[in-house]
Amino acid sequence: MTIKSLDVAGIFPPVPTAFNEELEVDHQQLSENIRTLSQFDLQGLVVLGSNGEFVLLDEDEKTAVIRTARESMPPQSLLFAGTGCPSTRATIRSCSKAADAGADAALVITPSYYKGKMTDAALLEFFGSVATSSPIPVILYNMPTCTGIDLSAEIVVSLASHPNILGLKDSGGNLGKLGEIVYRTNGDFQVLAGSAGFLLPAFAVGAIGGILALANIAPGECLQIRTLFQKGKMEEARKLQSRLIPLNQQVTKIGGVSVLKSAMDYLGLYGGPVRGPLLPAGKEEIKRVRSLINDAGIEGFS
Amino acid sequence: MTIKSLDVAGIFPPVPTAFNEELEVDHQQLSENIRTLSQFDLQGLVVLGSNGEFVLLDEDEKTAVIRTARESMPPQSLLFAGTGCPSTRATIRSCSKAADAGADAALVITPSYYKGKMTDAALLEFFGSVATSSPIPVILYNMPTCTGIDLSAEIVVSLASHPNILGLKDSGGNLGKLGEIVYRTNGDFQVLAGSAGFLLPAFAVGAIGGILALANIAPGECLQIRTLFQKGKMEEARKLQSRLIPLNQQVTKIGGVSVLKSAMDYLGLYGGPVRGPLLPAGKEEIKRVRSLINDAGIEGFS
Amino acid sequence: MTIKSLDVAGIFPPVPTAFNEELEVDHQQLSENIRTLSQFDLQGLVVLGSNGEFVLLDEDEKTAVIRTARESMPPQSLLFAGTGCPSTRATIRSCSKAADAGADAALVITPSYYKGKMTDAALLEFFGSVATSSPIPVILYNMPTCTGIDLSAEIVVSLASHPNILGLKDSGGNLGKLGEIVYRTNGDFQVLAGSAGFLLPAFAVGAIGGILALANIAPGECLQIRTLFQKGKMEEARKLQSRLIPLNQQVTKIGGVSVLKSAMDYLGLYGGPVRGPLLPAGKEEIKRVRSLINDAGIEGFS
Amino acid sequence: MTIKSLDVAGIFPPVPTAFNEELEVDHQQLSENIRTLSQFDLQGLVVLGSNGEFVLLDEDEKTAVIRTARESMPPQSLLFAGTGCPSTRATIRSCSKAADAGADAALVITPSYYKGKMTDAALLEFFGSVATSSPIPVILYNMPTCTGIDLSAEIVVSLASHPNILGLKDSGGNLGKLGEIVYRTNGDFQVLAGSAGFLLPAFAVGAIGGILALANIAPGECLQIRTLFQKGKMEEARKLQSRLIPLNQQVTKIGGVSVLKSAMDYLGLYGGPVRGPLLPAGKEEIKRVRSLINDAGIEGFS
Repeated sequence: MTIKSLDVAGIFPPVPTAFNEELEVDHQQLSENIRTLSQFDLQGLVVLGSNGEFVLLDEDEKTAVIRTARESMPPQSLLFAGTGCPSTRATIRSCSKAADAGADAALVITPSYYKGKMTDAALLEFFGSVATSSPIPVILYNMPTCTGIDLSAEIVVSLASHPNILGLKDSGGNLGKLGEIVYRTNGDFQVLAGSAGFLLPAFAVGAIGGILALANIAPGECLQIRTLFQKGKMEEARKLQSRLIPLNQQVTKIGGVSVLKSAMDYLGLYGGPVRGPLLPAGKEEIKRVRSLINDAGIEGFS
Repeated sequence: MTIKSLDVAGIFPPVPTAFNEELEVDHQQLSENIRTLSQFDLQGLVVLGSNGEFVLLDEDEKTAVIRTARESMPPQSLLFAGTGCPSTRATIRSCSKAADAGADAALVITPSYYKGKMTDAALLEFFGSVATSSPIPVILYNMPTCTGIDLSAEIVVSLASHPNILGLKDSGGNLGKLGEIVYRTNGDFQVLAGSAGFLLPAFAVGAIGGILALANIAPGECLQIRTLFQKGKMEEARKLQSRLIPLNQQVTKIGGVSVLKSAMDYLGLYGGPVRGPLLPAGKEEIKRVRSLINDAGIEGFS
Repeated sequence: MTIKSLDVAGIFPPVPTAFNEELEVDHQQLSENIRTLSQFDLQGLVVLGSNGEFVLLDEDEKTAVIRTARESMPPQSLLFAGTGCPSTRATIRSCSKAADAGADAALVITPSYYKGKMTDAALLEFFGSVATSSPIPVILYNMPTCTGIDLSAEIVVSLASHPNILGLKDSGGNLGKLGEIVYRTNGDFQVLAGSAGFLLPAFAVGAIGGILALANIAPGECLQIRTLFQKGKMEEARKLQSRLIPLNQQVTKIGGVSVLKSAMDYLGLYGGPVRGPLLPAGKEEIKRVRSLINDAGIEGFS
Repeated sequence: MTIKSLDVAGIFPPVPTAFNEELEVDHQQLSENIRTLSQFDLQGLVVLGSNGEFVLLDEDEKTAVIRTARESMPPQSLLFAGTGCPSTRATIRSCSKAADAGADAALVITPSYYKGKMTDAALLEFFGSVATSSPIPVILYNMPTCTGIDLSAEIVVSLASHPNILGLKDSGGNLGKLGEIVYRTNGDFQVLAGSAGFLLPAFAVGAIGGILALANIAPGECLQIRTLFQKGKMEEARKLQSRLIPLNQQVTKIGGVSVLKSAMDYLGLYGGPVRGPLLPAGKEEIKRVRSLINDAGIEGFS
């Protein structure tokens, strides 16, 4: 266990896992994507999040992805790895392996298969055990759309006092709750927005950054929203965020990973295929996302 | 039908309906509450919203409440009345009666009993018919917690082009969606936050005000958040909003109308009882809300 | 308050409210439908249920519908009227009016607008107060699809001991729960299935009848399922019920009241239009339900 | 791929995975439990279902559990193994390993992490691919409480025509839907109830057996319900099923695996601990389940 001290304020793209046509991890392409993204002023990046298809990877594949990411990034850039597993013991093991492979923090999603049994007591026990055993700091990952469980402010505030839990990535988008968490943790807990769709309002309630699918394809724009907010240029910030919303909806709520990957392909990164049970993006979806990229004025990587 | 032109930017309390001990509407107390609230720089107020127990009132009672409110308010202050009913025809009739009784705009909630049939086509037809027939402008009222229906950005944007639909009160709190609606309606549609819990982030995405239960007991503080935001004092705004969050949670999500009324009693307004099936606030709830009022530094009305 | 004594074992159609082209109640057509249905060996019928569009009718219209039904039925046939309203007081008043107009029992749906406040305590208080004040026996009406609230076995078993609550109409279809309720109430409480889709399995766990939309268009077949079950002819019963399922799905889950009314039109009853916000059945829906009626071998009324 | 031909009519307990105090799989105890259960006239048993904590086991542990089960069972007794994984490729690999280890059929749960993307097309593709590649027949496993996805009748009927998909275990308990599936698949598809709570009504709509947590602690009673149904003794069957309901609720809906294991401990089988994030059964839960076992008249294994 560490004492939390990482400053995670900033923008992080949750990098998709690159697969070749045989659906094996393509480390070469993953590495190149990461090198390209690392040219931006990002605080770091995330591997093995929902957009990283973490549930569709084997244990060894996960370790290899973390290793590739770490080797492809500047040393001062932060690397978070998704380490959540259905069982407490697998999650703890995963945190250790992630640490060994070079991750700076572990993003731990709510276990959710036995939803009816995931009482407050069970969640406190789970996250507490994992954080106590993890060699790297833990970031709570609240993703109700996928897990069917929405971490309450109570639970988060309670876990925030653990010395090895440094923050929360929230993809639920309940801004009232985020504000409450920031308020009740007295600035001693770092809240990251989980979607560009509510990045600016999250800043308004005290979030200090975001882990944003959109930052894979529009990192400059995501960084710019933060800069504008910091300078107090709210109206400009709002306009920029608004311009990105239709595209963000398409690559997150509507399309998902396959559409995000098709957008990456279009912009000069490597997107490639997704693993089943996810389906490839349809022709119409690809056409639509390209059109939205153009509408939003996003430029390709070169 | 009117052409929308009302400027509804500002803060509105959704005033509870005052009942006496026999659970009849107490117009005297309602009037006094409204006179007290009208001393603040509010843009107007709302009667017959969810906090007004509108579903628990008869048609004639509703008309009388609107009349009392209108008579107790300054003439330039805006009065919105909840007019949503389960049927299209009753809603239209209700809008006419509200107009006759002095309401400036009608707050129309999503019909929800036949949830499975409330397709986009049905909702477009409903709101379109009501707006076309209503003698006063219509404000869409999205309240998924109570209705089980969450109006999509698509529907709202489509309805925004109706000449007699001037805005949206959103109590769902999906800020990404609100930002999208503001963006896609090009400033020609007025979005009001439905809870103080996300007032500041709603401002950040382009909302122009709020209809806030909390504005019944802390009108000055709610107004102050808006002023601070307008002056670009984001951090002060955030701190003020944060200070109010625990109290706001208690009077909205946790306690509901009965607790809001007990808070009003405590602060020198008339709260009084609620109608069944709502239960009166319990002793512990009353104690808790009083303690939160004190913690938040809210002062009583005098 | 009465002492419960009605034997409600049998099949009941929840009769739609007939409207003319101006969407006013058409008492003539309603009466004729009821006379036609009364030729079958039904235990009685229900007015002002979900298929009776009860939420879309005014108070006076409701009373008139009950009166017409009573006058059109044989005296020994039972008449249930939906009397649930959002408030306790309106529900009690509605029970009294229904009794005066000739109803034998009141079908009382869960109040649901303030879902978050409809705790066990609130529901016990609501149904208890209504039952104590009602001049006719009360039947609990559990309809989670429309109300968003699913009455628990605990609540139902607790309410079953009230002397004026005689049974439950359950449209949720959780057969394990129905079996538990039958078991825990020791045969002193009458459970009615709320859909032909699970009539036979409901009999298997101890239900004594059903209030079935399908009984409006296939009363003979619904009665036959009961007879076959009573004679122990399970396999024949199953085949008959199965034959009806696609049609039942179409007129309940998929199509709703408008499709049920179009089926009635096709079979020689009066269906007519629905009130908004419900939309009329589409051409494809009408074609489909007619085809399913033919596939199921349902014959028209003559 | 095989051609489906297994007759799976009958009762199957979904056997919990036995862990020792270090939370490692205890093959000795698992084997003894299986030998004890095999003395009853069961059609077979299931390992690695929800009660088998399959999501909390590693790949190698799963294979070892299947092997132990196969070795501990009579050769003619059927062994089903849960093989569902989040990805298509892992599920296919899991089916092959299960076949090698001695499983007769694979129970494949709906993949559910990317809920929003699990369209009908995605589910058809997933189950179709798995079934085509699996060396043993596939049984669809519908478990909406845990997955948040409820397989529709459409999907199931469509998949039923696949030569290597032989049936469905349904834990959702929508009996209308089960009846529809039986009807539309013309007896060429085997439906198994997923809970003793609706075993008898499932028989009434055409199910041919059940995979029942309760069959771990009351195998004789579960078998007796089937026998009584087959003899047409509906009332006796109903009474027996009803007697078991409170206990069944406690070990399924309320308590879950930890309570089921404590019941096994009480009755002379090995229950033992559960893996985190599941919590051990509390003292009150243990007391309660023992009392319900006594109330239901269940006798211990000897």
